[in-house]
Amino acid sequence: MAGGSAAPGRSVTSRALAILDAFDASAPRLSLSEIAERSGTPLTTAHRLLAELTGWGALARRADGRYEIGRKLWDLGLLAPVQLELRQVASPFLLDVHTATRDTVHLAVRDGLCALYVERISGRESAPVVSQVGSRLPLHATGVGKVLLASAPDEVVAEVLAAPSRATRHTVVDPGRLRRELTEVRRRGWARTAEEMSLGTLSVAVPVRVERGSSTVVAAALGIVVPSHRRDLPRLVPVLEVAARGIGRALATTPVFR
Amino acid sequence: MAGGSAAPGRSVTSRALAILDAFDASAPRLSLSEIAERSGTPLTTAHRLLAELTGWGALARRADGRYEIGRKLWDLGLLAPVQLELRQVASPFLLDVHTATRDTVHLAVRDGLCALYVERISGRESAPVVSQVGSRLPLHATGVGKVLLASAPDEVVAEVLAAPSRATRHTVVDPGRLRRELTEVRRRGWARTAEEMSLGTLSVAVPVRVERGSSTVVAAALGIVVPSHRRDLPRLVPVLEVAARGIGRALATTPVFR
Repeated sequence: MAGGSAAPGRSVTSRALAILDAFDASAPRLSLSEIAERSGTPLTTAHRLLAELTGWGALARRADGRYEIGRKLWDLGLLAPVQLELRQVASPFLLDVHTATRDTVHLAVRDGLCALYVERISGRESAPVVSQVGSRLPLHATGVGKVLLASAPDEVVAEVLAAPSRATRHTVVDPGRLRRELTEVRRRGWARTAEEMSLGTLSVAVPVRVERGSSTVVAAALGIVVPSHRRDLPRLVPVLEVAARGIGRALATTPVFR
Repeated sequence: MAGGSAAPGRSVTSRALAILDAFDASAPRLSLSEIAERSGTPLTTAHRLLAELTGWGALARRADGRYEIGRKLWDLGLLAPVQLELRQVASPFLLDVHTATRDTVHLAVRDGLCALYVERISGRESAPVVSQVGSRLPLHATGVGKVLLASAPDEVVAEVLAAPSRATRHTVVDPGRLRRELTEVRRRGWARTAEEMSLGTLSVAVPVRVERGSSTVVAAALGIVVPSHRRDLPRLVPVLEVAARGIGRALATTPVFR
């Protein structure tokens, strides 16, 4: 963070943003002193910036005195393309898959070295999953992640395979085996995992391909999670493929989608 | 907006926030000059602040040079209580209602003089609706809105009834008739509308009540929308009531919900 009076603008804006940065999924509600500490901001500065951010609606002060993300940021976040251009287009197709299968269905995009979960539909009869909308999970250990990794640039694959983390005792962390899996995903057009992210569940996933002029890009991955006693996983692949093609066509006609 | 060098901190933060304020649902993608104009910021200042906001991830620059809301704000927005404490708790119940009825189901909270739509599940066979997640619609013209208005403070009711807007030729705008409707909503515990927000659809809605110690508050409204040829609207009320009670119980055990 830039500081000092030589660049007051830079400093003030970046300090305000650092205050927002103090909040994350593991710490969605923070006290003044926690915010000051997490953002590296002096207490008096934090207090003044919090007043401005709260006045605008970026943050809200709770009855217990702690701060939380305000409705204004929720509003603005809904305008992000991941929501406006992908989630809204894909949601009805995910609901179709859920209606047909009653299983947990989710949609993810690659965000650096992670699979970012953009939408999820999960019913009462569905297998419990760790991912929520907004979750980031490792690319190599999830069905949607393997699909996204199979179409990622070489340097991303190299970086993931350099240090694949272990989530369960079934997580595949051997780089050679992961490489062979990715080749297989590219060849057959879908990925599967067996208790690699969480014990007790299996998953399959397919790419959502979007035609862009003469080329085709993998814009997202569509996956389904079932309890590990289920034996009908291969039957789910064509269900996902039909939905993924529908999403791909809908995205291709969304002029703003990149 | 404060300006001048006497309060550089106030000025700079509020200018950065004014730039974010330039974006809304009707203008989710803006050029530099549009942002400068909409936020009342000089071009050079806007350019510098955009660089900072883009660097942090609040905004992203598109291939066509325009700016859009970035993934970072989407991430932070997901931490707002309307998402974290209400939407995530209620979603499975909305899916239950949709699975049972195949109709459009939505959940709204009161935001000032509007019904703010927090969650929506709508399938291919469901009636098309104008509301999306994040939409704000008039309290007096929607089913969920009438439910929320029926439990709103007197001054909110007075303000809405002072100038009720007309959305269709069926919108009830007579203050006396609206008052009688609200009394009826309180008495029987549900609201209905007939083509008052959009032609061709009917809606019913019920309150989501949450017990807070010895008092009960209406935390949200749960509604369903059907095509206007349907004659089974009263049958849907108990379906909604069961789901609303489930949501209310789940919210009561969510310690953080206010």
